[in-house]
Amino acid sequence: MDISTAYKDNNYKIHVARDILRDRLETYTGRYESVYYIIDENVYDIYKETKLSFIKSPLVVTGGESFKYVSPLMHTMEELLASGIKRNSLIVVIGGGATGDAGGFIASIVLRGVDYIHVPTTLLAHDSAIGGKTAINSEHGKNLIGAFYRPKAVIYDLEFLDSLPESEVLSGFGEVYKHAMLNSPGLFEELVQATSDSIDVSMLPPFIIKGIETKMKIVLEDEHESGSRKFLNLGHTLAHAVEYKYKIPHGQAVMLGIIAALYISNELNGTDFNLDEHIGYMSRHGYPVNLLREMDTGEMMQLMMKDKKNHRNDYISYIVFKDKQTLEVKDINTANLEKILKALKERI
Amino acid sequence: MDISTAYKDNNYKIHVARDILRDRLETYTGRYESVYYIIDENVYDIYKETKLSFIKSPLVVTGGESFKYVSPLMHTMEELLASGIKRNSLIVVIGGGATGDAGGFIASIVLRGVDYIHVPTTLLAHDSAIGGKTAINSEHGKNLIGAFYRPKAVIYDLEFLDSLPESEVLSGFGEVYKHAMLNSPGLFEELVQATSDSIDVSMLPPFIIKGIETKMKIVLEDEHESGSRKFLNLGHTLAHAVEYKYKIPHGQAVMLGIIAALYISNELNGTDFNLDEHIGYMSRHGYPVNLLREMDTGEMMQLMMKDKKNHRNDYISYIVFKDKQTLEVKDINTANLEKILKALKERI
Repeated sequence: MDISTAYKDNNYKIHVARDILRDRLETYTGRYESVYYIIDENVYDIYKETKLSFIKSPLVVTGGESFKYVSPLMHTMEELLASGIKRNSLIVVIGGGATGDAGGFIASIVLRGVDYIHVPTTLLAHDSAIGGKTAINSEHGKNLIGAFYRPKAVIYDLEFLDSLPESEVLSGFGEVYKHAMLNSPGLFEELVQATSDSIDVSMLPPFIIKGIETKMKIVLEDEHESGSRKFLNLGHTLAHAVEYKYKIPHGQAVMLGIIAALYISNELNGTDFNLDEHIGYMSRHGYPVNLLREMDTGEMMQLMMKDKKNHRNDYISYIVFKDKQTLEVKDINTANLEKILKALKERI
Repeated sequence: MDISTAYKDNNYKIHVARDILRDRLETYTGRYESVYYIIDENVYDIYKETKLSFIKSPLVVTGGESFKYVSPLMHTMEELLASGIKRNSLIVVIGGGATGDAGGFIASIVLRGVDYIHVPTTLLAHDSAIGGKTAINSEHGKNLIGAFYRPKAVIYDLEFLDSLPESEVLSGFGEVYKHAMLNSPGLFEELVQATSDSIDVSMLPPFIIKGIETKMKIVLEDEHESGSRKFLNLGHTLAHAVEYKYKIPHGQAVMLGIIAALYISNELNGTDFNLDEHIGYMSRHGYPVNLLREMDTGEMMQLMMKDKKNHRNDYISYIVFKDKQTLEVKDINTANLEKILKALKERI
């Protein structure tokens, strides 16, 4: 399935299907004088003799989140420059969300910007590959350095998902869960039913496509995150802090963040989300819900105060439900938020 | 004098006059929750008790070109993040072209982009402050990493020029000379006459303003450098190599590059630029023209081959005159170009 973006200009396609990488890629590479491949080492190890054997001399980069730091980023950037990359070159980034974030950021700043295509290889990346955000991490938090920079295409070859370890499936599913909630109570119900026993990747494609469409719709309304795009951060404020401190995969942290967001919505906006149902579902599927009981709320607060979505001192911008179907950005006083998080710890 | 850009959107003003910094700045800073100042240490040393005394706790950065590297850049970026910079903060960058390039680049990527204002303090920066290009240097050459990112304003307080050392005046004047050539033979004649004895900064403002207007006109036609903007690189192809290797100020290298461009135009396009007049003028005012006699052409070729404007292997894209008033981009075979440069060495 091909989904097209609908920006004012610089639109691109998101190709989603099994076993499409090489064919789709060929429809693009011919337009460029040279093509450079940046590939996550874990992905390359698995597929170098098969699916990726057509690629000659790729830049194999350190796996996952460890690539999202200045030092490995600059190493790869200097390698590209040493190999003679030009403005009319193409960079193809093959890997999960982290590889896409950092690879896209490289493309955005090398020679002040060259074209790139992202080939997501994880379930989680169905989220990060959409929306044109690139980023790396700072000493002070995740994704604090980056650019808005759109790829020329996203080629999402679902075959890559077959080799995902369980914990990566859980992580990616966190964003599938979030997108279903953002889409509608109906879709969310469908998803929970389809996965009530286990999260089977082969059943997910329709929900992945719905997730991409949901995200795209929101991103198109608000590319630079001045309004509704903020809603995509449902669960993310606490998630970034949990993830940074406790080193759990992003989407798993998002799941915990969603619990917090629902709890806060119930407390501050009087919604009636059934917390036990969400917690039960997540525990059953192996999410580390216990971290919510053990977290250091003081440290979580410190980290959340660095979130780039905040715009007032002593307040944290939190995405909460106003009612069952409507989201809002609520500036919550830090002292109040810490009190609520402490209560949540007791509640788990 | 205020010059306004005329892009489709995101326009900004370039304020040019003496003693305007504080007043003009105040018309902007009120719109932001917090303001961060990045100031070149040399500028701050001179003006901290006078013109810049109103600025509390600035980030004072290493002077000039030495700031345009990843390590000092990241240091300043982490300082901004540590101080709690937010998306609705403003960064004010006070310094010459290098400080503006790197400071603007920081603004473009911190939190994926915050607003900034550039306050150029050198004559050279009348050039780099216009056009929305930001950059830092790579191990492989100058300005190879960066972004297209427009400031919210440029406040060019000409009082800063009073404290410029002679070699900086010569450097900045290289771009004034280039812009006059790009504007018209008439303006160029006026400039040469006004400066025939010496380059007196107090006489330059009309030529600076003309230079800004000339550059702006070209940039507006072609922001992302796919066409006519390339002409602004007149003299720059060799200049970047000379500057990188022989560590002379940018604009002085541009002057040498202009001689090379005129020589190549005469050789390849049959123009009849009077090289001796240009060389005589430059020598008389103290430009290091002898470097053209002493340069290592092999090394110059190596460096020029890394220029990001090149788009074909074994060819260098060179800006030359097609006739006395018309410029063109000429792809010159590397072997041929080296031969011409060797002949130029003999000719000096």
